[in-house]
Amino acid sequence: MTALDELVEALRRLPGVGVKSAQRMAYHLLQHDRGGAMRLADALLAAGDRVHHCTRCHTFAEEPVCSVCSDPTRDDALLCVVETPADQAAMERTGSYKGRYFVLMGRLSPLDGIGAGDIGLAALLERAQDPAVEEVILATSFTAEGEATAHAVGEALRSMGLRATRLARGVPIGSELEFVDLGTIAHALADRR
Amino acid sequence: MTALDELVEALRRLPGVGVKSAQRMAYHLLQHDRGGAMRLADALLAAGDRVHHCTRCHTFAEEPVCSVCSDPTRDDALLCVVETPADQAAMERTGSYKGRYFVLMGRLSPLDGIGAGDIGLAALLERAQDPAVEEVILATSFTAEGEATAHAVGEALRSMGLRATRLARGVPIGSELEFVDLGTIAHALADRR
Repeated sequence: MTALDELVEALRRLPGVGVKSAQRMAYHLLQHDRGGAMRLADALLAAGDRVHHCTRCHTFAEEPVCSVCSDPTRDDALLCVVETPADQAAMERTGSYKGRYFVLMGRLSPLDGIGAGDIGLAALLERAQDPAVEEVILATSFTAEGEATAHAVGEALRSMGLRATRLARGVPIGSELEFVDLGTIAHALADRR
Repeated sequence: MTALDELVEALRRLPGVGVKSAQRMAYHLLQHDRGGAMRLADALLAAGDRVHHCTRCHTFAEEPVCSVCSDPTRDDALLCVVETPADQAAMERTGSYKGRYFVLMGRLSPLDGIGAGDIGLAALLERAQDPAVEEVILATSFTAEGEATAHAVGEALRSMGLRATRLARGVPIGSELEFVDLGTIAHALADRR
């Protein structure tokens, strides 16, 4: 296999990249952006070497404990469970949450063979038993898999006598009611305040 | 900037990759495929180091002269001009062309500042003056830019007394006539045989 073919094959392993995209990327890098190719290689090696998981919340971190977990100003009483670092970043951008996080780094997906062990459920249950934690907020996605994950995690927490809440379902801001799906409207109606 | 942010930034420079895709790729590599990340880094370094341009046809090659240019069984009388190595590969897959190639590694695109110098027109003209070449086949894309490139290259070749032909325009195999665009039908009618 030539170096070019090997590069195309390696790019194909990226999520969402097919053979045509991989070829286009390889040609682009070799023809127009060799500096970008070197930068990407360096970034891959550096990230592979330095990025690990926070021992407390499991998000990506270069230190043993991430900046959020080690921040003394955050509220220890709240623990927010999210699927990915991107979800955590979305929560942070709201500026309205000052508690701690636990990042599952995935979601339950029996069809893909992803079970409780893969999302670190045992580690979460141990983390949630910290006496300072008063409430665990389940902020997994509102998809079928995210809901199943929230259900399983919530049941496990409640069986240990811990308090678990779920983000509110409702009509998104800026929506015209006629275009909102019926399940969402039904939830918004039941949870009216 | 953290190693993770740096990786996301480097992935964003790939064509067709936005910030969300770059994040997804970085998370995937770090969470599920660290072997793939190392393989990609190695492939980038190896390709950057070993892949150059064939001195004869300008396609990507690890040797000074590529395998097609150095193949003694190919027909020296035909020289096919294509835009990219991917286009060359498409020609090769037809199994019906046994001549040589010249790969422009681009196309004329005045709006993007890509002129005759960027597509190696002078090198092509020099290559086409090889006494063995009897016909230059212009196989650039049938887009506005590809047509402009074929026109410019064809004019330059003809002004030097060389014979330049263009791939036939016509109705693609498997097409229902009612869905074929009018320009294509008009060309197919004019070139009927």
